[in-house]
Formats: sequence, C-alpha cells, structure tokens
Amino acid sequence: MNTFGNLFRITSFGESHGKAIGVIIDNCPPNVELSEADIQVELDRRRPGQSHITTPRDEADQCEILSGTFEGKTTGTSIAVVVHNKNQHSKDYEDIKNVFRPSHADFGYQNKYGIRDYRGGGRSSARETIARVIGGAVAKKILKERYNVDIWAFVDQVGENKFKNIDKNYVEQNVLRMADEAAFSDTLKLVESVKNDGDSIGGCVQVRVENPPVGLGSPVFGKLEGELARAMLSVPATKGIEFGEGFELSAKRGSEANDPFIAEGDEFRTERNANGGILGGISTGDDIWFRVGIKPTSSILKTQTSANKDGENVELSVKGRHDPILVPRAVPILEAMAALVILDHTMLHKAQCLS
Amino acid sequence: MNTFGNLFRITSFGESHGKAIGVIIDNCPPNVELSEADIQVELDRRRPGQSHITTPRDEADQCEILSGTFEGKTTGTSIAVVVHNKNQHSKDYEDIKNVFRPSHADFGYQNKYGIRDYRGGGRSSARETIARVIGGAVAKKILKERYNVDIWAFVDQVGENKFKNIDKNYVEQNVLRMADEAAFSDTLKLVESVKNDGDSIGGCVQVRVENPPVGLGSPVFGKLEGELARAMLSVPATKGIEFGEGFELSAKRGSEANDPFIAEGDEFRTERNANGGILGGISTGDDIWFRVGIKPTSSILKTQTSANKDGENVELSVKGRHDPILVPRAVPILEAMAALVILDHTMLHKAQCLS
Amino acid sequence: MNTFGNLFRITSFGESHGKAIGVIIDNCPPNVELSEADIQVELDRRRPGQSHITTPRDEADQCEILSGTFEGKTTGTSIAVVVHNKNQHSKDYEDIKNVFRPSHADFGYQNKYGIRDYRGGGRSSARETIARVIGGAVAKKILKERYNVDIWAFVDQVGENKFKNIDKNYVEQNVLRMADEAAFSDTLKLVESVKNDGDSIGGCVQVRVENPPVGLGSPVFGKLEGELARAMLSVPATKGIEFGEGFELSAKRGSEANDPFIAEGDEFRTERNANGGILGGISTGDDIWFRVGIKPTSSILKTQTSANKDGENVELSVKGRHDPILVPRAVPILEAMAALVILDHTMLHKAQCLS
Amino acid sequence: MNTFGNLFRITSFGESHGKAIGVIIDNCPPNVELSEADIQVELDRRRPGQSHITTPRDEADQCEILSGTFEGKTTGTSIAVVVHNKNQHSKDYEDIKNVFRPSHADFGYQNKYGIRDYRGGGRSSARETIARVIGGAVAKKILKERYNVDIWAFVDQVGENKFKNIDKNYVEQNVLRMADEAAFSDTLKLVESVKNDGDSIGGCVQVRVENPPVGLGSPVFGKLEGELARAMLSVPATKGIEFGEGFELSAKRGSEANDPFIAEGDEFRTERNANGGILGGISTGDDIWFRVGIKPTSSILKTQTSANKDGENVELSVKGRHDPILVPRAVPILEAMAALVILDHTMLHKAQCLS
Repeated sequence: MNTFGNLFRITSFGESHGKAIGVIIDNCPPNVELSEADIQVELDRRRPGQSHITTPRDEADQCEILSGTFEGKTTGTSIAVVVHNKNQHSKDYEDIKNVFRPSHADFGYQNKYGIRDYRGGGRSSARETIARVIGGAVAKKILKERYNVDIWAFVDQVGENKFKNIDKNYVEQNVLRMADEAAFSDTLKLVESVKNDGDSIGGCVQVRVENPPVGLGSPVFGKLEGELARAMLSVPATKGIEFGEGFELSAKRGSEANDPFIAEGDEFRTERNANGGILGGISTGDDIWFRVGIKPTSSILKTQTSANKDGENVELSVKGRHDPILVPRAVPILEAMAALVILDHTMLHKAQCLS
Repeated sequence: MNTFGNLFRITSFGESHGKAIGVIIDNCPPNVELSEADIQVELDRRRPGQSHITTPRDEADQCEILSGTFEGKTTGTSIAVVVHNKNQHSKDYEDIKNVFRPSHADFGYQNKYGIRDYRGGGRSSARETIARVIGGAVAKKILKERYNVDIWAFVDQVGENKFKNIDKNYVEQNVLRMADEAAFSDTLKLVESVKNDGDSIGGCVQVRVENPPVGLGSPVFGKLEGELARAMLSVPATKGIEFGEGFELSAKRGSEANDPFIAEGDEFRTERNANGGILGGISTGDDIWFRVGIKPTSSILKTQTSANKDGENVELSVKGRHDPILVPRAVPILEAMAALVILDHTMLHKAQCLS
Repeated sequence: MNTFGNLFRITSFGESHGKAIGVIIDNCPPNVELSEADIQVELDRRRPGQSHITTPRDEADQCEILSGTFEGKTTGTSIAVVVHNKNQHSKDYEDIKNVFRPSHADFGYQNKYGIRDYRGGGRSSARETIARVIGGAVAKKILKERYNVDIWAFVDQVGENKFKNIDKNYVEQNVLRMADEAAFSDTLKLVESVKNDGDSIGGCVQVRVENPPVGLGSPVFGKLEGELARAMLSVPATKGIEFGEGFELSAKRGSEANDPFIAEGDEFRTERNANGGILGGISTGDDIWFRVGIKPTSSILKTQTSANKDGENVELSVKGRHDPILVPRAVPILEAMAALVILDHTMLHKAQCLS
Repeated sequence: MNTFGNLFRITSFGESHGKAIGVIIDNCPPNVELSEADIQVELDRRRPGQSHITTPRDEADQCEILSGTFEGKTTGTSIAVVVHNKNQHSKDYEDIKNVFRPSHADFGYQNKYGIRDYRGGGRSSARETIARVIGGAVAKKILKERYNVDIWAFVDQVGENKFKNIDKNYVEQNVLRMADEAAFSDTLKLVESVKNDGDSIGGCVQVRVENPPVGLGSPVFGKLEGELARAMLSVPATKGIEFGEGFELSAKRGSEANDPFIAEGDEFRTERNANGGILGGISTGDDIWFRVGIKPTSSILKTQTSANKDGENVELSVKGRHDPILVPRAVPILEAMAALVILDHTMLHKAQCLS
C-alpha cells in the first residue's frame, strides 16, 4: 500500500520516468503556516547531483502545492504536493528491459504483478522518496514549532569505518554528511576511489530525535521501535536497524547493559541512554537514537552476471555515470520518516489520553 | 494499539497478574481444522520453567477456544482464545511499586498513562506474548497446510559468541534452542555461570521462512522488511534486526554485495541470498532470513541503582529466582510473529492480484 | 471484520450457543473509573426476557472484566470483558440445520464461508450485540464524565404508527421504550395482538446526542452521517437511516428545507435543526438526531415456505415462544453504537487539531 | 480523513477554487487496461452545465493520469489522476466570506478548524466528487470486465413524486436521469418552475448492483448495508438511505415482510428481494438495491436569513445562476461510490476465503 501513518498520513505516487511524483498529506493540523519554500529546503537536501560523488540526474525537483492551504496556512483538509519529472524520456532502457538486475527490485515486481515499468526502476526508483521528504518537511516543521522537537541524522559509518565524533554543525557542511570532521578527508578519498573503480560502497546513518515527548508508542504491537523500524526499512537500500546500543546489547550481560534511571530534581534521565530513548516500546523523554544500515548502490559500472525474463543467464554492463554511495542522500529521507512517525504518535498519544 | 495485521489480524489483552491473557483472531479463513491441541503445542514451546536455566513461573498455560470454530473447523468468524492466569496474587510487589526499574517499561507506562499495573510488569510482562503465540500457531498451520511454507527459528548468538553451523533438527533438542551442536556445551556453561552470578546475558535469534510465496510485500511503505521489522521489534527485549547479511552489507562494496540471479530451467534463485529473500521490499521466493538482537533480561539479582516516582535515587535488589537468558524463549514468539506477517501478506497479495 | 472504530475501538467475538460472548476495548483513555457494575446496568437494559412481550431467553448476562483495569481504574491498555453463555446446549437445531430461513443470515453465511454454526444463528445471533453494549457503556460513561454528552434513544414508530410526543423520562418506564405516554396503551395492545398471531412487527428508533462537541466528523469520506450510518446499519435487523428530517427533506424545496443560523450572544443555533445537528458532515453543536428503521423479527411462529441447502423448497414451522418486536431492545444497542462513534470522533478531532 | 476503502482505496484532494482536484487510487489490480478515456466518460456524466436545468459552471474537467500505468495497463502501483481547475479566480467571494450560509458546511468547517477556504465552498464543494467518480470509473471497469457486475442508478423521486416504472435504457436519455418516461415531462415542468422561482428541490436516487458476487460483506461490524450506507452518506447533500423496501419494512408484520427463498435447480433467489440483496449483512447474489435521499440544493436565489462569524443575524441574497436540483447529478457519483464498495469487498472476500 502507498499510505503511511495512522493519523498524520501520507499517500504517495509516481515513477522515475512518469509524469510526476507526488504526495497527499492527510489529517494535517490546521493553521500551520506552510509554503512551497518550507518544503523545497528539504527537497534540495534530498536532490541528487549536488557534488562530484553523487548521481548525475540533475533536476530542480521544484514542488507545487495543489491543495490544502489557504492564504498561506493549512486548512485541515488534504494537502497535495507534486513534483513534475523533467527528464522522463531521457534514456533508452531497451537493454535492461528484460534483465533482472542483481539486488534490484526488478524480479519481485515482475513476478508479483506480471508487468513493470522498467524505465529507471519505475516505482522502485529512489525518486519515490521525494514524496517522503515532502511529508516529512511538514511534520518536522510542526514538531519544531509546536513541540520544540528536533530531528536530524548523519552518516556514522562508510564501508568498514565507524566514526566516533558527533559534531551536529558539521553535518551539512560536507558532501558525505558526516559528523566527524577528522575522518572526513580519508573517507572522501575512499569514496572517490570506489567511484573510480566503477563500484559502490555501503554505510550507516544515525538518526536522532532531540527532546521527544514522553509517552510515544504503545504497549505490545505499537512499540515505538517497531513503528520506527517499519518506517526506516521502507526506505530503499536499507537492510538493518538497531536502537541505542542495539546489537551490542545482545553481546552484554544485564549488569553491563542495564541503564539506571537518575532523578535530578523534577527530571529523570538514564545514565547512558543505551536503549535509545525507548523502554517497553514507549519514549522516555531521553533523546531517541538509532542506526540504519544501508547497502552499497546496486547499480555499478563493473560487469556483472545475472538472468533475464526468458530464463537466460546474461552479462550485464551498465554504461554512463553512477552513484558510488547512497548513504549521505539517505540522511534527509530517514529524517523525514522519523518525523512522520514521531508526529503521528504524538497525535495518537494526545488522542488516547484526551490531553 | 493492541491489534496486529491488516487482513489476518490479532487483537490481544491481558496483564501478568490479571485474570487472563487472550487474543481474538479476526478474518481467519474458514474451514481450517483447528483444536486447542494445535495451539497448545506452540504454547508449550513458549512456556517458561521448562529447564533449569529459565524463569521458574511454572504454569500450564492451558488455552481454551471460546468462539469461531464449529465441529472442529474455523467458521470465518472471530476466534477468541484465552489462557487463565493461575498465580495472580502470588507475590507482594510493594517494594517495586514506585521504583522505575532499569531498562524496564515502568517509567514509560507511568508517564504515558499516569497509572500502571506494577504487578509483574502488568501489560508489559512477557506473558502478553501468549497471545502472539496463539495467533501465530493458527497462521503457521494455515501456511503449512495451504502453501507448504515452513517457518522456524533458532538461537545463533549468545553473548559475544556467534554460532556457525545450522542443524534444523537439533534446535528443539537442546534447552538453548541452538542449531549448532558443537557449540552447545560451552554455551550452556556460560549461561549457567551467568545465572550463578545473579546476572543475565543477551543474544540473537535467526528466523527463517522456507518456501515463501513470491510477491509478498509491496512497493514503497509496505516493504516486507519493514513489515517484518515492525513485527519483530514489537516483541519485548528486542533492540535490532537485520535482513540477510544485514549490517555486513553496509561494510561492503557493490561488486561484493550484489547477488546475481541464476536461472535454472524455469526457476530463478540468487547466488548467495545475501538480501534475505527480499528485494525492493518484495519476496523473491528465496528463503527469507533475518536476525533479531535481544538484550539481556533486565531483571537481575545483582544490586542496582535507579530512581523512584518521588524523584529519589534508590538501590534496587530483586529477590527470588530469575531468568538468565531470554533468547531461547524468544524463538517460538518470533516464529509466531513471522507467521502472522507472512500469512497476512499472502492474503493481501491474493486480494490485489485477484489471483 | 470484527473491529469497530478508529481510535476508540472494540473487537468482538462469540456465537449464540458458543461458550461466551466478549469484547476487547482498545485505546481507552486511562484513569477512567470502571467496574463491572458500570457495564452491567447497560447489559441489563439489553437483556431479553424482561417483559411478557419479549423473547424468553432469560440469562443474567453477567459480565466479567478480564484485563485493562487496576484498582478500579482503566490503565490505557486493552480491556477485555466477557459474558459466559449459560444455555449453550438448550435446544435441538436439527430441523433448521439445512434450511435457509426467510430474511435470515443463513444463506449468506453458508455461501460465503461454506460452513456455519446454525445453533441459534451462531455469529449472526442478536447475542453478538452484548459486545456492542459493553463497549458503548464505557464510551457513554467517558462522554458523560468528560464532555457532558448525553446519548439516549426511544421507539418513535411501531408498525405504521409514528408517535409525536417526546418525553425523555417516560422511556425507561414502559416496556416498549416509547417516549409518548398517550400512545402507549394502544401500541401495547397492537403488539400483544401481533404476538398472539404468532407474528411480529417492525418499527423505528430515534437516537439523540445531546450537547455534542462541535467539529466532529471530517470533510469528504468521514462525514459524521456516514460514520453513524455505518454503525447503525451494522446492527441486526436495521434497514434504513435518516438524519434530521431525512427523507422528508427530499420532498421539499430549498426555501422550506433550508435552516437559518441564529446568533444568540456568543452562541449559534439553527432554527429547526432540520439537518439533525450535522452540516457538511460535521457536527454543529446542535443536538444530533436520526431515525433508524428496523424490520419485523424474522423468526415467527406462522408457517412459512423457504428452501434448504439441498435445493428443495420446504415448509418451515418454528415452535416455542418468540419475540414479536425487536424495536425496544434495539434502543440500548443503538445508543451504544452512537456513543462509540461520538467518542471515537471526539478523539480524532482532538488529535488532528492538537487541541 | 480523505481515504476511502480497505483494499481498493482512493485518497482525494482539492478545493473548488484551488489549483486542481485529484485522487490516488491505491492497490488497484495490475494488468487492467486503463486510459484517460475510460475515466473521462464518467467524468462527463458528472460534469455540470450539461442542460438548462443544471449549474452553469462549465468546465471540461479533463483528467490526466500521472502515474500507475505503463503501456496502457495498470502496474499495481498507485494511480494518480488529476483534473486542473480552470476558473479558479472567477468570482469575488467577499460578501459570503463571513456568513454561515443556511444548511451549508461553512459553520462546521470554521468551528472545527478555525480557518476555511470560503471560495466556492472550498473543500466542501461538490467538485470534490470528481475524485470519487475517477476512482469509481476504474472500479466499475474492473467489476464489469472481471465479474460481469453492472452498477447503475436513476432518479426515482423528485420532490413528493415517486416514480414507478423502471426503464434502464431511458435513464441516460433524459436530463433528469429518470427511469420513468411517462413521468418525465411533468417532472421537468416542475423543476423548471422551481428554477424560475429561484428555488430548489430535493429527490431520491435508486442504486442497483446487478449480478453481485455472493458473500460480500461480513458479520457484525462490516455488514454490507453499513459499508454502502457510509459510502452514500459521505456524498454531499445526502440525508438518508434505505435498503430494499427499507422503512416500509418497519411498518409491516413479519409474515408480510419475510421473503422466502426459492430454489430453482442449482440456483436460489428470494421471492421479492425485499431486503435489497443483503441478508445478515452479506450479499445473497440477488440484485442489490437501495434508495438515497438527497436534500434540495442549499444555494438558492431567494433571500434568506442567517448569521455571520461576528454573531450578527443577517440577510443573505445570492446572485447569479443556480442549480435547482442536485439529484440527477448525484447519479454517477452514487454509482461510483457503490462500485468502490463492491470491488473493495470482492477483494476482501477473496482474501479471507483464499479463493
């Protein structure tokens, strides 16, 4: 299904080489100041072609609000936002039309539906994330203005290298969206070398929700980890997620892993926040943090083998330029998904507790 | 919310020390042979107190079907199944009534709702998983009978030790539900030593779906990884999930990570199944496999610090017996959740494709 | 599906001659005082066998809360309530086992599912409304305590006779739940005569929501009329609904039908409330009122023709006592459904408007 | 919320004087041949300005498919269809900006959201039904092609005059969409006289589903009457619905109202189909039929009183042309909503019964 969210909901449409990508934002609170500029700033962060290491598709991705606002404010009715595709017919896809590219969605789509739009990946293209970023831009704005919640993310691993320092201000100053300035230059060299090889490389993004409301998520099936995990693992190329210290907690004993509460005046916090701000599935008010694992770009220039629709094993050799690393571009997308979940659950919490 | 699933749905209720734990299974296909024995076999796998290394709460957890079957078959109407709690009032919880136990749900519940049933964790107790196992037992049965799908899981890591061998037949023959017989005896010693220390230890479970239908999951927000991740991370004590090679893919280059399709006659498979049987969010027909990280039991006998409701920092010292490892008991629960997702998406796929 | 509601949700189970009827109430606000007595009072209103004109099945229908409360208050977790059936095996149903009774659910169930529990109608029995009344009792209590909303209903038509006077206090003082004392005695005679004929008779219920919040319902698909209509027409034996002056508006001109707003100080009201308190699908704050048409009881003692499973045309002659009129018993059930919708939409409104 | 449907789902957007009206159709079966022409034919039936008795807004309402099809066929991904508004700024709405027009949505929107787009009714304008008709056109096509289901409707009452004859072929041959040719000429005169008075008139639409699948709808909350009622009463200006003989059944005795099954070879039918093809909430395979009551157009030229936002009682006098009757234009809209419900429930049935 193409709808995400319970109360604050987005429904998306669009293929890589169709006429447009777009989204309907439903159940948005009324009287929120909203213009195309508020959304465009996040779309510009998502846009490829911003540096020598990213994909060359260079479109303005200019958004247009079609409904749901009046005199610069949301009205409470559904907000449609659309981005028209510019280079719909830019390329001939005859050669990959019948091939199931390795680690791509081609095979699943063909076998699920018996038909697929193979041009640029069709619906499975990363261009669908435009809709997510639009919805997330609105959610982020509401969370910031009404609840002072700040959501941000950064690249904390490229290939085998995990970075340690976290300098929030540095993230938007470097093309890799790293938070560790000391590690940047070596990492950039690595990525350039991967690119020169016609290859690609994976990595991880860390997402942080600062100052979240207490009490988000619900017992049993609506645990906040599950809700966030579903959101993150719906983003193309993601293959894992861990909350707080995550898989490292599996390796520990309880006496090491447990994280005592500390009372400070009227406030409570945990000593290490090892659980990532969520206990029993419910936010504690500590910052929420988690890491998302992203695989290397599946499209590479190096020659590969695979099979085609007719059951033939073939060699596959993609031409042109390519994108050696997806991880930095995932940053604004994962932020958007986190914002959607956090706002949705803030509304759910408010509803249940009649508060 | 306490409902899980889109079409095949379960809604659960019950607290650790309330009168009963139960579940309503909704939209179950009709004419499935179903008796309490079909469910009890899975409940017995979940039941604690089965060996010297697990929690001592020793109840029969006998299930009773209250509705939805007639003459031994499902009728298509809602199936209610209930397990009555036996030792509801077995313990005095006065001493932990106001304490926020480290890494427990106490704090979140209290701050979300302003009230909580503190007896044995109330709704946050692992006893709620009885409802999951009941629903999962029915889903597993239908998947096996109608689609020949087999879902099973095993412990593939305890503490820092990852096990390599996978012997499916061995899993239910050892108390740790490991699939690696060679590693069992050392691991058991480790767990016993942790228990003697009054401590606990974490680990990982690997879940496998053999012979899944092709085409489960949907593009964009309904990717099968996201759906499974949400299910798994709604289980108590889980903190991470990775599909196929997961976080290891993040460390690789595309040329290593990509996984060519191979055509064999009319059939297709991938060389390594590195993506865990899911590409572009849709099942490929390869076995689905993923790993779930589980933290050490939060309740330990060792003295810990924490805070109470009144804002005082306190020492906490739990008495009695305890459960040094949750991981083996998570096996049937994670299987159940996987079965619920796979059956639900099989029904969704059938509906959309009118097939 | 057996779940009703978006935020305040109930999921029900149970057949006429199964072990129990029950309901899970999900997402109930916490800290609501709730005991079995609060629910029992509404169940007692629903209970058959209370007068010489109603069905003879005389069970106490005693409810038991299984979860979701602690020390007399709701905890925010799912509330399960169960009523055990007493006379499960009281009757032999061999003779109607294969017959499709006229105007009954038998045929649809058999053809939809290929199996049905024919004992007392199984899931299609009016006993399923026990679950509705339980959920509605909780919703009514919350609406009254938190929002001073009062929901009540009465019989405003029996057979061809429409009653004019509305005396709220009289409704629970007469076995027909009429609000028109002057018309009672003649109507009772009519019903008694219908009963003596072994026949049944239909009628209408008018439901009123006093002091509803303004702003419930949503534009387009979530109009409050639609939401209420779905709730009402899910009750057995209902065949129509009209809001405010309803079908009479269809017969009028705009200049007669239009209903001017009148400002009185800070308050607004409409002159006639002809639209039943809902305009553009959204509550205006005027009392909500609507009428529900209920057909005569399908089970009658008179001999009828019909067909059986084997394709034979047969004569059908039901023995024993019967229920000549359903309409008075529908009163508490329709109130319950109205309460569920109004509370659900109050929560939805609060969530969207972050108010 | 702006989404309708469980499996076959539409999400709509757009205001009367915004940039566009549109819809996303989600979960559409793949491999359905679909072009703009398939949709345009239904939009043309909905379009106002087609005769001297309807509203003068004369737009082409040309639709454009933005996504979800490839080489003329649906792909299984979300289908976005948009109609751009032409006369967005055609009129000055200053004079009604603050007035709550009688029987209009103005008051509710203002009080729900604290803001509203008053131009032409904004989101509450009947222009939103463009989205319904688009979705319905696709649903009708699938129902016809795959299941040979035919959905059609006609005007069976104007003002106080109920028509008796039903000639399906006549409906699209007259501007009032009546099925009774004998009554047409008098009814047209009535409508013209109402128009000349600057007034409006109500009426009823009868909807018929020919050859529906057996087994649609579900016990308890998902009864097909409730699902259809919700759909119909979400359409602007509708105030009531009755299934089969509807409110007339309330006036009858069981011995008159009951409707025996008749077996004819392998087939079953009912004698009169008094229940409108639905028993116990489930379709029996008999034609489904129901009537929807529609109030007179609220906008009339005659001077009326009402109140404004500032709490002043005012006189209201709308200028220009107006629409004396909505009922014929409701015909394709109600057909569309019926098609959406029937297809959705066909998919739900298929999913549950794994058939």
